[in-house]
Amino acid sequence: MARNPQLNKNGELIHLLSTEGLSRDILTQILDTAANFVSVSDREIKKVPLLRGKSVFNLFFENSTRTRTTFDIAATRLSADVYTLDIARSSTAKGESLLDTIANLSAMAADIFVVRHSESGAPYLISQHVAPHVHVVNAGDGRHAHPTQGLLDMYTIRHYKKDFTQLSVAIVGDVLHSRVARSDIHALTTLGCPDVRVVGPRTLVPGDLSHMGVRVCHTLEEGIKDCDVVITLRLQNERMSGALLPSSQEYFKSFGLTTERLRWAKPDAIVMHPGPINRGVEIDSAVVDGPQSVILSQVTFGIAVRMAVMGIVASHDA
Amino acid sequence: MARNPQLNKNGELIHLLSTEGLSRDILTQILDTAANFVSVSDREIKKVPLLRGKSVFNLFFENSTRTRTTFDIAATRLSADVYTLDIARSSTAKGESLLDTIANLSAMAADIFVVRHSESGAPYLISQHVAPHVHVVNAGDGRHAHPTQGLLDMYTIRHYKKDFTQLSVAIVGDVLHSRVARSDIHALTTLGCPDVRVVGPRTLVPGDLSHMGVRVCHTLEEGIKDCDVVITLRLQNERMSGALLPSSQEYFKSFGLTTERLRWAKPDAIVMHPGPINRGVEIDSAVVDGPQSVILSQVTFGIAVRMAVMGIVASHDA
Amino acid sequence: MARNPQLNKNGELIHLLSTEGLSRDILTQILDTAANFVSVSDREIKKVPLLRGKSVFNLFFENSTRTRTTFDIAATRLSADVYTLDIARSSTAKGESLLDTIANLSAMAADIFVVRHSESGAPYLISQHVAPHVHVVNAGDGRHAHPTQGLLDMYTIRHYKKDFTQLSVAIVGDVLHSRVARSDIHALTTLGCPDVRVVGPRTLVPGDLSHMGVRVCHTLEEGIKDCDVVITLRLQNERMSGALLPSSQEYFKSFGLTTERLRWAKPDAIVMHPGPINRGVEIDSAVVDGPQSVILSQVTFGIAVRMAVMGIVASHDA
Repeated sequence: MARNPQLNKNGELIHLLSTEGLSRDILTQILDTAANFVSVSDREIKKVPLLRGKSVFNLFFENSTRTRTTFDIAATRLSADVYTLDIARSSTAKGESLLDTIANLSAMAADIFVVRHSESGAPYLISQHVAPHVHVVNAGDGRHAHPTQGLLDMYTIRHYKKDFTQLSVAIVGDVLHSRVARSDIHALTTLGCPDVRVVGPRTLVPGDLSHMGVRVCHTLEEGIKDCDVVITLRLQNERMSGALLPSSQEYFKSFGLTTERLRWAKPDAIVMHPGPINRGVEIDSAVVDGPQSVILSQVTFGIAVRMAVMGIVASHDA
Repeated sequence: MARNPQLNKNGELIHLLSTEGLSRDILTQILDTAANFVSVSDREIKKVPLLRGKSVFNLFFENSTRTRTTFDIAATRLSADVYTLDIARSSTAKGESLLDTIANLSAMAADIFVVRHSESGAPYLISQHVAPHVHVVNAGDGRHAHPTQGLLDMYTIRHYKKDFTQLSVAIVGDVLHSRVARSDIHALTTLGCPDVRVVGPRTLVPGDLSHMGVRVCHTLEEGIKDCDVVITLRLQNERMSGALLPSSQEYFKSFGLTTERLRWAKPDAIVMHPGPINRGVEIDSAVVDGPQSVILSQVTFGIAVRMAVMGIVASHDA
Repeated sequence: MARNPQLNKNGELIHLLSTEGLSRDILTQILDTAANFVSVSDREIKKVPLLRGKSVFNLFFENSTRTRTTFDIAATRLSADVYTLDIARSSTAKGESLLDTIANLSAMAADIFVVRHSESGAPYLISQHVAPHVHVVNAGDGRHAHPTQGLLDMYTIRHYKKDFTQLSVAIVGDVLHSRVARSDIHALTTLGCPDVRVVGPRTLVPGDLSHMGVRVCHTLEEGIKDCDVVITLRLQNERMSGALLPSSQEYFKSFGLTTERLRWAKPDAIVMHPGPINRGVEIDSAVVDGPQSVILSQVTFGIAVRMAVMGIVASHDA
């Protein structure tokens, strides 16, 4: 069997491409490391010299100010030097190939590439061609994966609910187009979560996902009934096409999370969202700003998780 | 009476939104603090560890390379970590609201938001919604205020003229569209300047500004007669509209500051301009480059003043 | 005779505008200094505190992500504070002149301006108008010069071939449009290289360049025959105009460097390219990735050379 391309011969994490294929031990190592970076107040993230003198290159082939900024902050708090490349205006525009661009950047003594790309698999391709001293972190590729979002979701769930092995988690919304959903599902099942449900209309939630170890629900009530965690997804209008898809109003009518509907879940259920939020489409404002929402904690924890990932991969040789 | 939103309960500065409403004590505190950051040569600005480990976010909803760069330099010289967000391309473009963007950035453990916005009042709105640990500095909002420009103008005047209580200061030009003029007027009157004049054609200088404690002059000679300080403003063609406004040539003919006309002011009068300059429109090149011009000193002092403002607000709790 | 504008009265380098006019001593000083910044492994570039507290401004009036990034890295590794200005969107867009922009940036306590401009001579013009404490480094101006590329090419040649006085060096390609070629030729002849050839079709290689001390060859075989070094140039389609120029296919057929043709050079000849590469136009992929290619070493050495240049100019007074 082919070795997992994210691991070296010793089974240590050298690239983060996907939560898929990562063991419970490695996921737990990342979450535990991140916990070291979150201070007691849960607000402040500590600054540490772990990557002093190292170079982190933010390679965002697809624009995402939010994710780019969180990686920039995370690398800075590890004391790395951070370089952000405006790839859209770079030599790739002069006809240079992706791999030549990558080879050149590797030669600039880079240590970590943070890669966001609209094509699924681009971070994997890059990881196969970088010099041995360069580590690749996937910051979102096509519909494929968004592993640091998945990991920060796991951090948030563990923070509020402690033990995965007793939890019911519902992922509600545009599962079909969501790299977040895929990353969450792999991480949750690996961490031992016994009840993962994907919830949404048939046009957005494929009928048979049983091979992924999840339950498919086509009504919100069934989907979040007695759940501990409700992860709402952004309705990705910008990625959708086709006349069969629901309008925002139709979607909210059937699947929008309101205060009333949230009562179907457990009384102490937490509500998550990867952002940016469409208030009044996938989730009602009262829920976003309500007592069960942990959405802003996700953002804060996301920095600690990205620090952990970069710190871990950079500490291992290829 | 409502408390000034820039101050905490102890009357300490926690946000800088406007020079309006700031006491003489607070203005003087800022100028005195800035003086510590200007070295003896008046050229070099010292680097200090005051904001080490703190995060400054440059949020420029309206582009201004010059102002953004001076804030970037000022924060860097305070040893802060600086993050510049290309807001135009960010999640606000995905339909996220301003306040959700702000809430998210707050959750990234920000300490200071430097905000530039084309809408008057945006920095105030943001300051009302940030987490208690975040401080807001207005870097220019619509026609409303540009307080750090006002403060650096005060620093420059004090540097060359020492005592505000004996000065005549003329502000010449497009007062109607100028947030600089508004910020200067508030600061000058608070600091005890007994003679502030606004000078320009009726289309650019509203007739009755007596409530602001200034004298309106519609000829340049009357306006700068025996003045100690002449502040020329940029003719903001890009903000203007309407057929009643003067052409550049007409404006220069009546109000352009030339070497000859400058003789109407005191022989040791200083000439200021917030930049960028339209040479030959509001001011003649010979004056810009002449011995009475302190325009480049304003730029240098601007860094020290912005250091002072960020250092002061960050030292106070909400 | 006019003093070289790159040197102060003591003959020390204060600006780098061109390799033209620099003595063998100064070129050697730069290469020797760069060698200090390349570690034993030839991969890692050391971080040093030489420019701690100094400000480097990247002023790219013409976009070049690659060159900008290498200067950014070089300055960061000297521990400088680096500011990158998006000049295209700055006050020059509001009608401010180049020299006013430069004067303003000088007043922000800048130490080094790295200037890229589409107009030949712009860095020279800027160097004539900056305050005495500011140093200018040319990062490429029009067709005129690209001196740090020339210097990194010299570093690479010296690294692999040790002694310039026995070498045959061929520069192949679009010499007419290439600032790299001009910078290489000046540096090679000054460093004592006895045999410099420029190679290409008559439309791209002017007939009489004997005043530059080079030999013109209009066939590839004659051009690279028994050479020690083959420098291939990018076919600058974006700078070309006119119907007389060769198509990419025609060019490759006559002058494209293939493994077979490379055998005309010495068996241990090295192959260089300034990037970005048009694979299959000026050079075949097998050569780019082959054992004689030192193209990625050029990139790595480029950082050390840029560190050396900035360190040297900043250590001298005007």
